[in-house]
Amino acid sequence: MLDIKITKTTNPKPLPTEDNPLVFGTIFTDHMYVMEYTKGQGWHDPEIMPYQPISLDPSAMVFHYGQEMFEGLKAYKTEDGRILLFRPDKNIERANNSNKRLEIPKIPEDDFLNAIKTLVKVDAAWIPTKPGTSLYIRPFVIATDPFLGVRPSDTYKFIIILSPVGAYYPEGLNPVKIWIEDEYVRAVRGGIGEAKTGGNYVASLAAQIKAHDEGYSQVLWLDGVERKYIEEVGAMNIFFKINGTVVTPMLNGSILPGVTRNTCIQLCKEWGLPVEERRISVDELVEAAKNGTLEEVWGSGTAAVISPVGHLRYENDVFQIADGGIGEVSQKLYDTVTGIQLGKLEDKHGWTVEVK
Amino acid sequence: MLDIKITKTTNPKPLPTEDNPLVFGTIFTDHMYVMEYTKGQGWHDPEIMPYQPISLDPSAMVFHYGQEMFEGLKAYKTEDGRILLFRPDKNIERANNSNKRLEIPKIPEDDFLNAIKTLVKVDAAWIPTKPGTSLYIRPFVIATDPFLGVRPSDTYKFIIILSPVGAYYPEGLNPVKIWIEDEYVRAVRGGIGEAKTGGNYVASLAAQIKAHDEGYSQVLWLDGVERKYIEEVGAMNIFFKINGTVVTPMLNGSILPGVTRNTCIQLCKEWGLPVEERRISVDELVEAAKNGTLEEVWGSGTAAVISPVGHLRYENDVFQIADGGIGEVSQKLYDTVTGIQLGKLEDKHGWTVEVK
Ligand SMILES: Cc1ncc(COP(=O)(O)O)c(C=O)c1O
Ligand SMILES: Cc1ncc(COP(=O)(O)O)c(C=O)c1O
Repeated sequence: MLDIKITKTTNPKPLPTEDNPLVFGTIFTDHMYVMEYTKGQGWHDPEIMPYQPISLDPSAMVFHYGQEMFEGLKAYKTEDGRILLFRPDKNIERANNSNKRLEIPKIPEDDFLNAIKTLVKVDAAWIPTKPGTSLYIRPFVIATDPFLGVRPSDTYKFIIILSPVGAYYPEGLNPVKIWIEDEYVRAVRGGIGEAKTGGNYVASLAAQIKAHDEGYSQVLWLDGVERKYIEEVGAMNIFFKINGTVVTPMLNGSILPGVTRNTCIQLCKEWGLPVEERRISVDELVEAAKNGTLEEVWGSGTAAVISPVGHLRYENDVFQIADGGIGEVSQKLYDTVTGIQLGKLEDKHGWTVEVK
Repeated sequence: MLDIKITKTTNPKPLPTEDNPLVFGTIFTDHMYVMEYTKGQGWHDPEIMPYQPISLDPSAMVFHYGQEMFEGLKAYKTEDGRILLFRPDKNIERANNSNKRLEIPKIPEDDFLNAIKTLVKVDAAWIPTKPGTSLYIRPFVIATDPFLGVRPSDTYKFIIILSPVGAYYPEGLNPVKIWIEDEYVRAVRGGIGEAKTGGNYVASLAAQIKAHDEGYSQVLWLDGVERKYIEEVGAMNIFFKINGTVVTPMLNGSILPGVTRNTCIQLCKEWGLPVEERRISVDELVEAAKNGTLEEVWGSGTAAVISPVGHLRYENDVFQIADGGIGEVSQKLYDTVTGIQLGKLEDKHGWTVEVK
């Protein structure tokens, strides 16, 4: 494992005050982590330094050819002052799966975890403690060769930044309204949908704006081939409880394998709920909504943890899910996951990793 | 139209010497153009400045969510010393179509053209004159909000850089070998395939490497839905001459509407060749290759202009196109297009725009 050189800021920023709401993704801490990759040499010279601008040649490949990967996870401070990460191994594994699809060199797992832990420790004072808040961790890789032409870059920067955050959706745990998109497509089998990379997100913007204009906060994507099977939400995986069974789209290569998705599946199974990972068509969903067997819908993701869905719109039909409120399983998942994350509930699965 | 502030370098770089080959996309001129966008204010403060690094917050949205657009066109110096651009209006139109799909604000056409002309004039000494060389012009837009979360950015930079270039493919006008990809997918209907944006290119890398490893220089993509219909090559559109008819895939939303494609279609029609823009299946192609009616194949793109294709591989079959050499129409298109670009042939269509 590489030694991280640490240079602390001599000019710390004021910490956000407890009474200001932490708008997601707008405040950054005092330090950042940077490691360079050079072909032939590999990853080298990891460094924690004062948070500062990145300076790149205007021909840097990331600006032109989209070779970029990111991850998102969170650190929490427990009531007794310990710092916990939630399943960082899962994010590191997914990061390297994304890297592989994007022809970005693999990052050694131990250096990756050490980077997160060391940076979080340096900026530990920034971890907020109000209910619903946490320290969002954003590792990302960008291609830096100053070169025009389509090929993988020979140089990269792996960077981690930290942001104290509150709720991702203004709704908080209140149910969101979701728009099922049948025109635009986010990703397709054989493409880059299962990688966490910019191209998938820019592809989602047009539909997101269309949905917002119609009063819907999120888009639910259909598959790119038949535009018939449910995939996922903009930044969440999706779950349905139909007639007592928890159903979620199977990992088919075009949806992101969410860490929270995996957590939800495990918990539901332990609670004795039947869980099915399979293809689910929008027709099946509409039918279930119509005949009253669609009992609950929720999204799962690091940013929002669990986001109950109150309404679905498909083409010209709007469906209210049950009474439009927070479902029982959604609430139990939210309480359990955040309970474990905050160290309030016993961590039977060894999901939390303490930063010492 | 906005006035461009011009600050010239006090430290000019040496011009590349005529005897060094100009490796595509590796050398940049002395100046760059930058214009900023701010929500509420629009595009403002265009400036030509010494070529220099761009400094961005590590949370700048372009690094995370792929909101980036680029274009590519060329400037040529004629034998009598005039500077010509080739169909810049087409690139500007396409740039704004890409911007629309990517939720990037539209760039006023007159400011765009003025930016290109003014920058090319400032760095006119960098336009190479050896046969096969030109000045490649790379306009691009990046999202710059320091923000984590999926939405369009409120701020952007529009930048233009210039690179004196030689041949894009090491092969030059020699026929390339092309790999028809049936596993990976570059883009799909409803996605961002017809926009010129990084996400489409990073998606192409894995197949490109696979093809290279097998000795093929380019990938020919199939459609994302049925993986059956021909789309385009990594950085070119594709043409087939089958039994006397020129056939090219129709613009279906998932392929890039190439400027050179449009030029080829117009010229072929004027030469009395029947031209069809339509769906063409890989089966039809294989059949034509087998029964000897596949007379010519070429790619069209700004970087290579015309790139004859000598061999196609699909699954385990390799097809040689005619005698594997440069076809008649390919050669005539290359000579005509470069002749017009270099001011050697009469420009009947008003395709060239002089930089005065
Ligand atoms: C497209 C997409 N799907 C699903 C998720 C949920 O994944 P996770 O639970 O790992 O945060 C995210 C967010 O990370 C996402 O961006
Ligand atoms: C994917 C793709 N297709 C086609 C082309 C050809 O377009 P044009 O002729 O405008 O250069 C390019 C290159 O610009 C490209 O990147």
